[in-house]
Order: sequence, then C-alpha cells, then structure tokens
Amino acid sequence: MSSERILDSRLRERVVSAAEAADLIQPGETVAMSGFTGSGYPKQVPLALAERIDRYHQAGQPFQIRLLTGASTAPELDGVLAKVDGIALRLPFQADPDARKRINDGRLEYMDTHLSHVAQHTWFGFYGDIDTAVIEVSSIRADGSLVPATSVGNNKTWLDLARKVIIEVNEWQPRDVEGMHDVYYGTALPPHRKPIPLVNPNDRIGETALRCDPDKIVAVVRTDAADRNSPFNPPDAASEQIAAYLIEFLQREVSRGRLPAQLLPLQSGVGNIPNAVLAGLAASGFRDLTAYTEVIQDGMLDLLRDGTLKHASCTGFALSPEANEEFKRNLDFYRSRIVMRTQEISNHPEIIRRLGCICMNGMIEADLYGNVNSTHVMGSRIQNGIGGSGDFARNGYLSIFLSPSTAKQGSISALVPMVSHVDHTEHDVSIIVTEQGLADLRGLSPKQRARLLIERCTHPDYRDLLADYYDRALHHSYGRHTPHLLAEALSWHQRWLDTGSMQPGG
Amino acid sequence: MSSERILDSRLRERVVSAAEAADLIQPGETVAMSGFTGSGYPKQVPLALAERIDRYHQAGQPFQIRLLTGASTAPELDGVLAKVDGIALRLPFQADPDARKRINDGRLEYMDTHLSHVAQHTWFGFYGDIDTAVIEVSSIRADGSLVPATSVGNNKTWLDLARKVIIEVNEWQPRDVEGMHDVYYGTALPPHRKPIPLVNPNDRIGETALRCDPDKIVAVVRTDAADRNSPFNPPDAASEQIAAYLIEFLQREVSRGRLPAQLLPLQSGVGNIPNAVLAGLAASGFRDLTAYTEVIQDGMLDLLRDGTLKHASCTGFALSPEANEEFKRNLDFYRSRIVMRTQEISNHPEIIRRLGCICMNGMIEADLYGNVNSTHVMGSRIQNGIGGSGDFARNGYLSIFLSPSTAKQGSISALVPMVSHVDHTEHDVSIIVTEQGLADLRGLSPKQRARLLIERCTHPDYRDLLADYYDRALHHSYGRHTPHLLAEALSWHQRWLDTGSMQPGG
Repeated sequence: MSSERILDSRLRERVVSAAEAADLIQPGETVAMSGFTGSGYPKQVPLALAERIDRYHQAGQPFQIRLLTGASTAPELDGVLAKVDGIALRLPFQADPDARKRINDGRLEYMDTHLSHVAQHTWFGFYGDIDTAVIEVSSIRADGSLVPATSVGNNKTWLDLARKVIIEVNEWQPRDVEGMHDVYYGTALPPHRKPIPLVNPNDRIGETALRCDPDKIVAVVRTDAADRNSPFNPPDAASEQIAAYLIEFLQREVSRGRLPAQLLPLQSGVGNIPNAVLAGLAASGFRDLTAYTEVIQDGMLDLLRDGTLKHASCTGFALSPEANEEFKRNLDFYRSRIVMRTQEISNHPEIIRRLGCICMNGMIEADLYGNVNSTHVMGSRIQNGIGGSGDFARNGYLSIFLSPSTAKQGSISALVPMVSHVDHTEHDVSIIVTEQGLADLRGLSPKQRARLLIERCTHPDYRDLLADYYDRALHHSYGRHTPHLLAEALSWHQRWLDTGSMQPGG
Repeated sequence: MSSERILDSRLRERVVSAAEAADLIQPGETVAMSGFTGSGYPKQVPLALAERIDRYHQAGQPFQIRLLTGASTAPELDGVLAKVDGIALRLPFQADPDARKRINDGRLEYMDTHLSHVAQHTWFGFYGDIDTAVIEVSSIRADGSLVPATSVGNNKTWLDLARKVIIEVNEWQPRDVEGMHDVYYGTALPPHRKPIPLVNPNDRIGETALRCDPDKIVAVVRTDAADRNSPFNPPDAASEQIAAYLIEFLQREVSRGRLPAQLLPLQSGVGNIPNAVLAGLAASGFRDLTAYTEVIQDGMLDLLRDGTLKHASCTGFALSPEANEEFKRNLDFYRSRIVMRTQEISNHPEIIRRLGCICMNGMIEADLYGNVNSTHVMGSRIQNGIGGSGDFARNGYLSIFLSPSTAKQGSISALVPMVSHVDHTEHDVSIIVTEQGLADLRGLSPKQRARLLIERCTHPDYRDLLADYYDRALHHSYGRHTPHLLAEALSWHQRWLDTGSMQPGG
C-alpha cells in the first residue's frame, strides 16, 4: 500500500496549509466539524481558525461561528475557539474546560441536544444552512471517497449538506482502519423514510467510506497529530462496588430467565464506573456478549481480546495512549469485531429499541422519585451535556444510572429531594446504582421508588435527612402522588451554594 | 349477517353473568383490562368486581388488584374500583376523578408510564405475571378470533400473556367496525426483533382481529352499554387564538419549503385546543393531510368528511355522543379511512420518527428554558398522566406544546421560572404556543429560549415578573448556562399554595 494518503489526484492538488484553509471560513458561518469524544476531530484547521478569529478581534472586527460537531472534541478545537471567543452557538455536546467555563459565565451560547437528533434536525433545517464542513479522515481513495478516522459522528450529514468542505488527512490515524466503518446511505426525510435494516449489532448496512462531491472540497490539509487520548485511571473502590451490585443484578436477571446468558447489547457511557462494570463482567464469566454503544473505551478492547465480547458497534473511540497503541498494533483483529457507524445510527431510537440495549450511564444526581439530572450542577451550571444518554435510556431494554452516592468529599449527595434539572424523567429510569446498593425501580409508583432509593442508594450521611424530607412531604404535600415540600425541595442545593455542603451545619 | 355476536360455539357455551365472571378474579391478582381514552373498556365485569371487592371489605377481608389498561377508561371501571379501594397499583394512565382523588390522597399507588412502553415492559416481565385479562370486543368470529371494539390499546398483549381471559361482547359497539383494526403480530422480544414494516400512516401490517387461545377464555359476558362519550365543547377564544398562531406557523414552514403542502402525519392530543387546531386547518385550505395519532376525536371525523384529512391511524376514539352516532351511521366511509392499531404501534418510537409526525400536545406549564410539565399540578398532584405525549414529542418531526397562558382565572401562569415537575425536557420541545403567541425554540440556547418565551408566550400579568426573575438569575445564578435562583425557582408555586395566586399580593 502506498504511503500516500490522498489517492484522488484532483484532491491532491487542493492541498494547502491549515492557515490557507482557515481563511476560507468567514465570520458568521455555521461550521460543522468532525469529532466524537476526542476522536477523529480536525487537528489544525480549528487552531488556524482561532488565530484568524483572534486577528480579527485584535483589529476590532467581529468574528464568531456557530459550531456543530458529533460530540465532544479537544482543546485543539473547542478549547482554542472558545478561548478567542470565536463561538456564537455550540451544539450538540462539549466537555472542554475552556468552553465549559465560557458557557457557565454566560458568554457562549450552548444548545445541549440528543445526539440522535442532530443529523435529522440539520436536514430538517432547524439549525439553518451549513456553510463549511471541516472533517478529519484517515485517507482519500482514488475515487474521492473519504475513509473516516477514529470517529464517524455526523460526518455524513456534514459532507452532504455543507456548501464547502475542508478535509484534514491525518497520517497519525491508522490507515488500515479502512473497512471498519459502516456509513448508512439509506436515510431520507419524511415522508420518504424506510425501516433501517439493522437487526444485529454487527450488521453492515452501508458503505466503508464517506461520499463527497469533489467540487465542494475547497481545501485539503495534511496533518499528523494524535487524538486526545486521556490516560486511563484504574477503577477505585466505589466504582468496583457499583459494578459488583450491577453484575449481581444482571446475573439474577439471567437466572430468572428475564435476560439471555449473553445478555443483550451493552451500551456504556465513558468513565471509571463503566470500565469497572466491563472488567467485572469479564471476571464474572460472562461470554459472547455484544455491545451497541456510542464510544469504545479501554475496557471494551480488553473484553474483545479475552472473548467476553464477541463484537461491538460504535461511532467513536475514547482510548488511553496505551490502549490506542495496542489498538493500532492489532487493527486486523479489531476490524473484524468492531463496526463504526454514523451517530444517527449508533444512537437511533429505532435500533436501540429493536436490539433492546442494556443502557448504563452516569449521572450527577437522582431524586426521590427517580428523576435523573445528567447535565447541570446545582441546576444552572452545565457539566458536559446529555449526549446519547437520553437516546439509550428511553429506548433500551434496561435504563441503568450509575453514580457514587456522594461527590466533592461528601459535601454533595447524589440522592436529593428534587433534582435541580431533569434530563431523564421518572418514566425513563429503571435501575439506579450507587456504592451503597442497587434500587430496581421497575413497576413501582413514585412513593415505592422513594422508599427504595432512600434505603438502598443513599449515603448513610444523608439517609436520615432524605427520609425526614420524605416523611414530612408525605404528610404536608399538596398532592401525595409525588410528595414534595416546594419551599424545601431545592434547599439542599441552596445550602451547598451557601455553605459548601448539602449537610446542615456541614 | 346474523345478529348473534358470538359465532364460536365453544365460547357461546361460556356465556355467564358479569357477577359470575367477576368471581373468577381473586384477591391480589394483576388484572389487565381493555380501554383507551374512554373507548372499548369493559362495562360490566369491573362493576361486578367492585361489588365483589366491597363484599370482601365489608367482611373485613382484604381484596385489591393491580390494574393495567391501555389508557384512561371511565367511571364504570376506574371509578368504581377506586371507590371501593380495590386498586393496589394502577398503570399506565388514568383520568378518572375518583381514582385521581385517591392517588393524590396517597391511598392508591399509580405508575405513570409512556404508553409505548407498557406492552414491551409487560413482555419483559417488569410488572410480573398477568393473571386475568378483561377485554371488551365487538364480536367473536366462528374461529374464536376476537373483533376489537372502539379501541385496541394493549389488548393483544393482555390476551397473549394473561393466564385466564374474560371477554365482554358489547352489542352497543358497531358490529361493522370489523375490518377497521390492524393487529400487528410481528412483534418479538429482543434479540429477535425485526423492523416494523409500516411506512405510511394507512399501511396495514397485521390482522383484523385478535387471536386468543380459546382454552384460556374462562367467561364471556354479553353487554349493551355505551362508551364514555364526553360532550363536545366548542372551542373558546383562547383555543382559537392558539390554533391561529400554530396554523400561521405551519403555513410559513410550508412556504419556506421545510414542510410539504400536505404537512406530515398529525398527532393530536385530546381536548378543545386540538379540536380548534383541526378546525383551523380545514378553514385554512389544507388538503390531503394524514394523521398518525393515539385518539380520534370529533374534529378528525369532521376533517375526514370534508377531505382535509385523507386517512388517519389511531388506537382508540374519544367522541361526543353526536359524533359517535354519526360515526356509526357512516361506518363504511370511516372504515376505508381509519386504521386502528395496537398502542404499541400507534405510539412506537420507530414509526413516529420514521413518519416524522407533527406532534401537538397540551401541557400544564413550561419554564423559561422550555422544560414542560404535563402531569403534576404544583409538582405533587397528578392530573392524568404523560400518556403518549413523550412518545411523540421525543420522536416526531415537530414537538409542539399548546396551552392557555394562564389557568384558574389567571391565578396560575403556564410560564414559570422552573417547572415543578418535568415530563418533557428542554431537549424534546421545539414549539410552545399560548394565546399570547408562538415561540419557536428550535436551534436556540436556554437563554435565547427564555427571552422568547417571556416575550411571546407569557401573559402580560406575569411577563414583568418572569422577566425580573430571569434578569436577576442572569446576574446571580451559580452557572449562567441555565440561570436560576434556586431559593426562588419554585416560589411561584409555593405562593399559589399559600395565597391562591402566583401573583404577589394577588
């Protein structure tokens, strides 16, 4: 195989510097970029664009863009553009410290969006026209088709809809990732939609590369830069305890005949607790599992290698540097076991419900009645965003939320009288697990849920306090279906704001 | 056609009185009954069961059941069973005054559930075994198959899963409703699910009758009683103003090319405002529309007759007595234009997203950031339930919520700082309409939504008050992504509880 990554001679002629490419982006544009959880985002054009924006601002001229991506990216994209105040509106998800700070300072408008909604809402025209797409790829084939890198995200939609396209060809990306992707071209706008013919997590229903009208490609930039690979932290004791409770539950469901021995396709959020769950599944003797998820992280690669996991579907990766090296070394092995899809398909309600995913996601807090807040600290400060958690929690077979029972050295309880923001309503939450225990909320009324959540999931430091609120609410609430004392319902959060602890006198 | 409604001789031999049938239901059973928005519910066995329960209670013996249905029923079902304290747990939806009172007094456990989740969660075993099904039908064919009445709801699932079955054959129901139903038998449990082959609202993908193992049918009861047909109230001025804003918006979307001239399949909640919208569509010259909805009410029959609506799909009816008479008289006409489905299919996320429904639902309140409360008055008192509004709002093309801007003679504002309960999160709400105006929230950040909702939708009596909260939150909130003053966020509701008005000094 030639070392040349750009095999289409027309496009080889359009190679320019990142600065020249960035000059093609004008103030006020809506720019759609690749990238999903720190994989497959453009590495140089955003940086050059930030410099261009900064020059404008130095000269007293306005320059902001509306920025759309797959999901979170990295400091070289969200970070640099936020720092120069280059973003007027950001969607659908971010996790960058600089962007987050500006959003919470009220200087950057952010629209947190279900990841399954983004592509179709763009097609529907809800976000206006897409002026420029900036897409990282691993290579360009002779016919001009684009081999995606380590994420697919919304790239198909961006390429289809953007007026002009800038491609980054990243030599750091493994070239032989080619063949791992599955880009579905059967989508349509209503009333012309058809069933999506995917019935197994490893079904291939599309093409291995992205199509793009070459006339729209205004620049190609060569890069050689690593994805944002976050170091892997070994699970702590709380994560392992949470994982143990969840695995015990899954084993019980299997023994009761409610789940097959191979379970159902796993969806797993990113982080320590999901990694602990995955490690626990392997250690507990589960075999031939499957995954239908957004993101593959270190733990899933381990499971694929040791046979716990047969195959996995995703739209991006979130690997540590070590796992990334191992992934590159054994790409042939992984290519036969991993399918990377557009996020429209990885997160599609139709598919998630059909497959009956077991959905495991983190949370900031849950309340007495099983409402879950995944996004807002103290009701007003966005952490990251809802991501795909709603797509999975609403549509899967089991909707499981996992969290330590306290945060910030015990000053915050993850179980509160009323959540300060709702991302997943009481209707969408079946299981809550903390290191204290597991609450199975299925088939329970609000009051039955409350008693279980106090008893099983709440930290002992907050248990009596929560029980006291509930008991008083039960007697004094206006309605006793979902008992609340409205003057007190958010007082734990206010107390934390006032005193630094949710505990009275804490 | 014979006037005999029970053509299967085996089942004709099992005809008994309602009291004899009710004697087959034992204390502690989980009983699944037919019925959806007051249509097609059993009329006599629940009454006889309530009498049986009352006799037990008079004798000091416990007798309660867990009660599942399609959706709401009527006083002869929910009402009588609630009055004798015969229900231990109720799901997935109710709208009965006596049941509501007991739920809000804390004496009846109720689990409000997405209507699309009920069948599959029962199959998954989340609600335990179904002991008895009590199903109203219009007739029994010679082969024992059951022709549904004026709703299908969850009847297929109840008949498939119940250990024993009681059938009510209601002669009041039009016999020639036969042929209007479409019962889909292609469902399965994961991992065996396949795409649902429905691509148009009027596609037929199933059978015209319900199957049931005749050996499970322990009793057949003959009845002759009307569905709960609620009188139709002509739209008031506020409803007509709301409808006018919405229709103007839809016309603009068509003229911008974002919607076809025939729109997309309409889903419409039940009530005055939806009826006003439907009337407005006809008056505005829309033609060849389609509907994919839960319930057909008077307005949709009008639209079918005058050609505004080509065809409609539903799972039940909510007609006034006059409309019901007209429906029966012209059943041949309606049978060719209406398909009645199981609620699993009428509310299926896969289908709603594929068809791209325009979803119009009522609400109790919305907050500054577009979160919607559909179920709880002052955060604790359940009104009815979420019904199918979540199935449609999350998955449709447009998620529209409609409400007058105030309630209870102006003492309650429908636009509040923070909703007291969340059923539809900020991610699931695209348009809010009151008689004050329409707010198009698509593509907007929380703060952009807030300004629009204050300006366009809030009643003048509350506009300054809400703007004042927002302005102060913007400056003093912990985070300024979704600005809130937690100590004040629910103070409007508390003020109403304390003083009878959300207005200070009101």
